[in-house]
Amino acid sequence: MTETKPTIAERMADDPIIDDGRIPILRVVPGPSDINANGHIFGGWVLSQMDIAAGIVASRRADGAVATVAIERMEFLAPINLRDLISVFAHVEKVGRTSMKVRIEVIAHRDRGKTQVKVTEGLFTFVALDDDHRPRAIAPL
Amino acid sequence: MTETKPTIAERMADDPIIDDGRIPILRVVPGPSDINANGHIFGGWVLSQMDIAAGIVASRRADGAVATVAIERMEFLAPINLRDLISVFAHVEKVGRTSMKVRIEVIAHRDRGKTQVKVTEGLFTFVALDDDHRPRAIAPL
Amino acid sequence: MTETKPTIAERMADDPIIDDGRIPILRVVPGPSDINANGHIFGGWVLSQMDIAAGIVASRRADGAVATVAIERMEFLAPINLRDLISVFAHVEKVGRTSMKVRIEVIAHRDRGKTQVKVTEGLFTFVALDDDHRPRAIAPL
Amino acid sequence: MTETKPTIAERMADDPIIDDGRIPILRVVPGPSDINANGHIFGGWVLSQMDIAAGIVASRRADGAVATVAIERMEFLAPINLRDLISVFAHVEKVGRTSMKVRIEVIAHRDRGKTQVKVTEGLFTFVALDDDHRPRAIAPL
Amino acid sequence: MTETKPTIAERMADDPIIDDGRIPILRVVPGPSDINANGHIFGGWVLSQMDIAAGIVASRRADGAVATVAIERMEFLAPINLRDLISVFAHVEKVGRTSMKVRIEVIAHRDRGKTQVKVTEGLFTFVALDDDHRPRAIAPL
Amino acid sequence: MTETKPTIAERMADDPIIDDGRIPILRVVPGPSDINANGHIFGGWVLSQMDIAAGIVASRRADGAVATVAIERMEFLAPINLRDLISVFAHVEKVGRTSMKVRIEVIAHRDRGKTQVKVTEGLFTFVALDDDHRPRAIAPL
Repeated sequence: MTETKPTIAERMADDPIIDDGRIPILRVVPGPSDINANGHIFGGWVLSQMDIAAGIVASRRADGAVATVAIERMEFLAPINLRDLISVFAHVEKVGRTSMKVRIEVIAHRDRGKTQVKVTEGLFTFVALDDDHRPRAIAPL
Repeated sequence: MTETKPTIAERMADDPIIDDGRIPILRVVPGPSDINANGHIFGGWVLSQMDIAAGIVASRRADGAVATVAIERMEFLAPINLRDLISVFAHVEKVGRTSMKVRIEVIAHRDRGKTQVKVTEGLFTFVALDDDHRPRAIAPL
Repeated sequence: MTETKPTIAERMADDPIIDDGRIPILRVVPGPSDINANGHIFGGWVLSQMDIAAGIVASRRADGAVATVAIERMEFLAPINLRDLISVFAHVEKVGRTSMKVRIEVIAHRDRGKTQVKVTEGLFTFVALDDDHRPRAIAPL
Repeated sequence: MTETKPTIAERMADDPIIDDGRIPILRVVPGPSDINANGHIFGGWVLSQMDIAAGIVASRRADGAVATVAIERMEFLAPINLRDLISVFAHVEKVGRTSMKVRIEVIAHRDRGKTQVKVTEGLFTFVALDDDHRPRAIAPL
Repeated sequence: MTETKPTIAERMADDPIIDDGRIPILRVVPGPSDINANGHIFGGWVLSQMDIAAGIVASRRADGAVATVAIERMEFLAPINLRDLISVFAHVEKVGRTSMKVRIEVIAHRDRGKTQVKVTEGLFTFVALDDDHRPRAIAPL
Repeated sequence: MTETKPTIAERMADDPIIDDGRIPILRVVPGPSDINANGHIFGGWVLSQMDIAAGIVASRRADGAVATVAIERMEFLAPINLRDLISVFAHVEKVGRTSMKVRIEVIAHRDRGKTQVKVTEGLFTFVALDDDHRPRAIAPL
């Protein structure tokens, strides 16, 4: 075996995620048990990934436990296929006294990374929780 | 052993979903693998059940395949506990040319059925699909 | 968008399980991971749903923890297909001093609810448990 | 490091299932998602394993596809604990023209193999299926 | 119905794992959700079974908790097909002061038991843990 | 709600992954069903994620189907806790005529991202497959 070992810089080069510098919070591959009657991945599977990813960034911002309290709006723009690699991007868009709005985008990578499709986008609201599971104030940054 | 029992005929009759609309579309029990860090059931699990239930009533109304295209709005009103029995009610609220809005409510039964809590409500939009997975007109009732 | 909708009050009312006994205890959709070598749903999947549903009605009747102790008899009358909607009906048929016999029927809804098939029926025995997991007397109604 | 090791030949030999009938058909470890409200393993999980094991021996005897048609009788003798190693023994007890009765016993190994408990026993009936999923005659041995 | 049956006593006897070392530690059937893009069973599924089986024999030998610390080497010799019955053999090959090397072999049974294929073999290293999850000495046999 | 919406650059700033510019192939959160008897995440779960991630980069390099053929060596350096966010890094380290060696590293993020622990590292070998599942030559870059 003689091929060169690519450097970290080389490995990042053509990855379009790095092109605009955004790191996915989650990167997952749906499985054969996640297919609906149309042969696509269940909407519910995608919603679960969005909720987990948004919860991660919300709990980091709140520095503590959080709970999903609402979905403002979300749209399914394109179906997800079996074995797509799914990147879930999420960031805290607004912070109120006890709640946060988290913007989530989901990208499907297919054809071994050659094609990327934005499959859904949404805005979820989370509330910061104290030890008694009651809303608590979020500290400013 | 002497307790009374309702007859099967009394319990079954015709499909009561069409008859009176009071019947849950889904009735499920979340399991130990559906718990989040707070000890409650994952938001994503509930969203999955809502999507499945709404898809059932949408595909019945459209008499064919459907896909989730949007969530207008949904709110999580109370957490779901491990081993709650969850009823998911759903009905088609509005029908457009190719799309439908489905109202979904989720009730948690706990304390062996003595307590009922409304845990979430939402409005999902579905589109009817033809064999090529393209939107198609929904027949009037 | 103009379609009618039943009111929530009409649909919900008090817990209809106690009211009229016609409501399925569980209503679930098996998934792609539940298929056996014949392309039908595993017998074990159905048995699991029956056990869960029967356990719910037994623990309600006993007002406490219960354990499955026996299956008197059950028959598989017809196979379950992928994506059938499955209703599991269950009711306490007989109550002894510490044990209960629970009758369970499973109906598959297919063709978007136009067809219903009774797929299995069984009689499971449960025992009421005290805090030490030992049989305890069941209070009369 | 000096401990002895049995040779592969000693351990493997010919398929011991046919040789002496003492080999478990399945040997599995239930997981954290299989626990019921009492902290024991779900009855439905055990029933699933019994159905899979019995189906294996039935399809071997019938030399083709089979379906579970009935459970004659089964008893849960003791609860299964999380992380027990479960051995499922099954053998064809009787063969009719198109059907077979399969005896199944389930043993739990705990305390790292020092304790063995018989947890359930049952008698399942299977039917041999032809390519159209209809009963077919089973060849004599 | 007239077929012979081995007695339970013949099949059960003492725990044959200790007696003759020819018994699989695990015997499992992968399911439809374990298939990769090639239609074979995921390598990760097999690795999981090997890790579980090796952990069982290591914790028996150490008479306490263990953790996987390394894989010396393993090779995938042949793919596993959907519905193969998989036997996982494992035995402690060497014992050091706090660690053990466990040899694992995986056999696939297909064609209703008529064909057996060795699908993988590996050598895993485990360490015995005390109550604080720190390495502890393993008692000699 | 008045807090500023962080820019993409701000979001990346303190993320240590971006510090050395490496993008995880997978980023996943293990769940309650992945816990072993020690309260840590199963070794087999980690091995599965490593195999999936390595398979993604191998199939991209080979521009086609691949199969895992060996694990050269891997070490578990630290346990994974429930709810850690797990990043799986993988890159093709060497390319032969029909095979590739893929280096995989797994990082656990805990304490809401404040702590990072390298939990395992390994070197997996994959072979490129043609349509008949036979080894085929890998094109040079």
